[in-house]
Amino acid sequence: MKLIDGNLETTNIEVENTINHIGKRVSLHGSIYKIRRMSGFAFVLLRTKREIIQCIYSEEFSNFNLETLKEESCIKLTADVIKEERSKLGWELRMVEIDILSEPLAESPIVINNKLVDTSLENLLDYRPITLRNEKERAIFRLQAGVCKGFRKFLSEQGFTEIHSPKIVSAGAEGGANIFHLNYFGKDAYLAQSPQFYKQMMVGVYERVYEIAPVFRAEQHDTSRHLNEYISVDFEMGYIESFEDIMNMEVGMLSYALEELKENYVHELELLKVALPNVSTIPSIKFMVAKELISKKYNRAIKDFEDFEPEEEKLLSEAIKKETGSEFVFVTHYPTAKRPFYAMEDPSNPTETLSFDLLFRGLEITTGGQRIHNYKEQISKMKSLNMKVELFESYLMMHKYGMPPHGGLGLGLERFTSKLLNQDNVRLSTLFPRDINRVTP
Amino acid sequence: MKLIDGNLETTNIEVENTINHIGKRVSLHGSIYKIRRMSGFAFVLLRTKREIIQCIYSEEFSNFNLETLKEESCIKLTADVIKEERSKLGWELRMVEIDILSEPLAESPIVINNKLVDTSLENLLDYRPITLRNEKERAIFRLQAGVCKGFRKFLSEQGFTEIHSPKIVSAGAEGGANIFHLNYFGKDAYLAQSPQFYKQMMVGVYERVYEIAPVFRAEQHDTSRHLNEYISVDFEMGYIESFEDIMNMEVGMLSYALEELKENYVHELELLKVALPNVSTIPSIKFMVAKELISKKYNRAIKDFEDFEPEEEKLLSEAIKKETGSEFVFVTHYPTAKRPFYAMEDPSNPTETLSFDLLFRGLEITTGGQRIHNYKEQISKMKSLNMKVELFESYLMMHKYGMPPHGGLGLGLERFTSKLLNQDNVRLSTLFPRDINRVTP
Repeated sequence: MKLIDGNLETTNIEVENTINHIGKRVSLHGSIYKIRRMSGFAFVLLRTKREIIQCIYSEEFSNFNLETLKEESCIKLTADVIKEERSKLGWELRMVEIDILSEPLAESPIVINNKLVDTSLENLLDYRPITLRNEKERAIFRLQAGVCKGFRKFLSEQGFTEIHSPKIVSAGAEGGANIFHLNYFGKDAYLAQSPQFYKQMMVGVYERVYEIAPVFRAEQHDTSRHLNEYISVDFEMGYIESFEDIMNMEVGMLSYALEELKENYVHELELLKVALPNVSTIPSIKFMVAKELISKKYNRAIKDFEDFEPEEEKLLSEAIKKETGSEFVFVTHYPTAKRPFYAMEDPSNPTETLSFDLLFRGLEITTGGQRIHNYKEQISKMKSLNMKVELFESYLMMHKYGMPPHGGLGLGLERFTSKLLNQDNVRLSTLFPRDINRVTP
Repeated sequence: MKLIDGNLETTNIEVENTINHIGKRVSLHGSIYKIRRMSGFAFVLLRTKREIIQCIYSEEFSNFNLETLKEESCIKLTADVIKEERSKLGWELRMVEIDILSEPLAESPIVINNKLVDTSLENLLDYRPITLRNEKERAIFRLQAGVCKGFRKFLSEQGFTEIHSPKIVSAGAEGGANIFHLNYFGKDAYLAQSPQFYKQMMVGVYERVYEIAPVFRAEQHDTSRHLNEYISVDFEMGYIESFEDIMNMEVGMLSYALEELKENYVHELELLKVALPNVSTIPSIKFMVAKELISKKYNRAIKDFEDFEPEEEKLLSEAIKKETGSEFVFVTHYPTAKRPFYAMEDPSNPTETLSFDLLFRGLEITTGGQRIHNYKEQISKMKSLNMKVELFESYLMMHKYGMPPHGGLGLGLERFTSKLLNQDNVRLSTLFPRDINRVTP
């Protein structure tokens, strides 16, 4: 019998620590990202976990033939770290010996080692396993991981408990036809459109909960902002005094995540030339006021009194930015007719709900609001909407046996990332997008 | 226009800080968990985010009628924090005033405020939204959140990048019939049995990746250890020198998570009387050696030469514990016939794979191993298994264009939690379990 003792020691150095090894011979590993042949020597770019490091090959000090190196070969490298003041890092890596761990069978049909992957969106996504190896492509999803890390740290510090709610469900939270159907051992089941019911139930347990997990929407839209599967950052909190408590929490969460990026993701921010937005305060405007503002300012007739057209969201963001400098804007008091059955109506005007969306650079990234917590109120609302109350028995259990005033929100992780990077298509911030035409790779 | 400034200040205190308020009048909120009427006064247990706090009601100092208080009412409480040496906390909370925020419509049909919820498993799960409010029930999932937190912190420190892979997929990773089918806009699609393909692809991008997310198995088993949807903790790492690198990483990850619990979850550990296992070293034994050991020691004929029977897993854990004291045991070199097509065979004996399971207290909680990274090797393996290679084109892209030696594992979060708590059914550590008979709540 062997004993596995969790020993993670290695003789390999991490590229980030190279500067501590000046004057020494070191071991490291990575993929050959690019070979630049010069006269008498070559620059060999090595792709490691997070960075791409320039190494120098020369017959003078390299004990192998450059021709044995292929792009996308994985190697173990022995190199000398030499002080070099002309290098902006202050040192350079001279390749001494290599051990080729694996070689590609073929060259990638798409050039992935230029500054940008210069191809169609279609190709970029079809070849995701390869195109993600591009320096900038992969930086996008490192930043996304950083955003999640920031969100989790913040929510944890604020006393939220992480939950894992089921994705196979017996009823949809959002209603409507936009739901994927599943044959579940002969029973009808669906893919969760949102963790809505579960996070509310869990407010009765922990007061504050959050979940970062996939949700599924069978929407037939084929636009630059729709995905049929996306990561929803959900939180829900009890004992709120106003639905603005939720908006304040979101401002805190966004600020915290951007700070996390600023502190620990400088490499990626610089690579992608990201200018982080200011999120210390976010202006808030009522839905109908916003509608009228856009109508007047841009001389547009209001066609839809219950929702924004995508163009209106862009114009509103533009107007707010001009007026206040903010690239975010909360829109509150959406019409009751357009919000789900669990949305709390404004007691002073039941045609409006105590709800909000958050727009960021012209795109809705969050929907949230206060929920009905009183059993009788919820039942009578459902009946007025001709809903079959008996289908929601387990959901309504919490109302029946006692719930605090509460509310929460859902934020689309890919939409937020995408707008943060000023992209024009949410797919660019989706690792492996699912849309009505795409279910691979 | 209003400005939302992220202000989270509140006049409410957190129960954990009560000791800093001795001698003061404070505000706090929570649900009434239990009312214990004594002669002339009452103990009122208040359920807050994480703790259950005993308050004292007496006509002497309480300015409200005790009869207005119902169990599961949500209240805002004004109380005096009084130094009291007879209390084990050193202080007591005298209820002065209350503001009733909400009241239940009915009393829970199941008693949830005793030490244990004394009911059948069926009822416990049917009434999940309510039964989870029990002090011990909710402690289980706080611990589970702590485990996830520990895993993430460890993996992040080890240079792993968090990824979000799609759950709607075009082909199953595990093969077989145990896959949920989905009609995806007229195309065939499935629910991911594992993030296997995607985490491997992402090794080509970041070298080390992890994901904690739901996976779906359409298994018809109705046992105490099977779920049809569960949370899989997956990691995958490149540039391994041996599949033991993965096992070492797992030992590190488990140790780290248990330390996290020891440091930050004392309240829950005490409540559930959890004795944390020692995980500093884990013995490792080859599959066939383990089979023979069990056969000899327990005088059982070996019936299945390719897998363990559940009973054998229990006996093996028992034997290893007796011999080494360890409640964990790695079993390595599973037969090639029983491992998926991407498992790497042992070059010195191709009937065995460079793979492992981790058993904990008699139950398999992890499956892992080294994967084939060479394109030709993978293709020929698939052909030998009569697989349709063309269905796996996007998966095989990574092999074709270069992949480092790599491997990884998947750990079942609910199974791990359940065994940590010495439960006899994995459903007890599943927030809202899905099994062949259950898709609600």
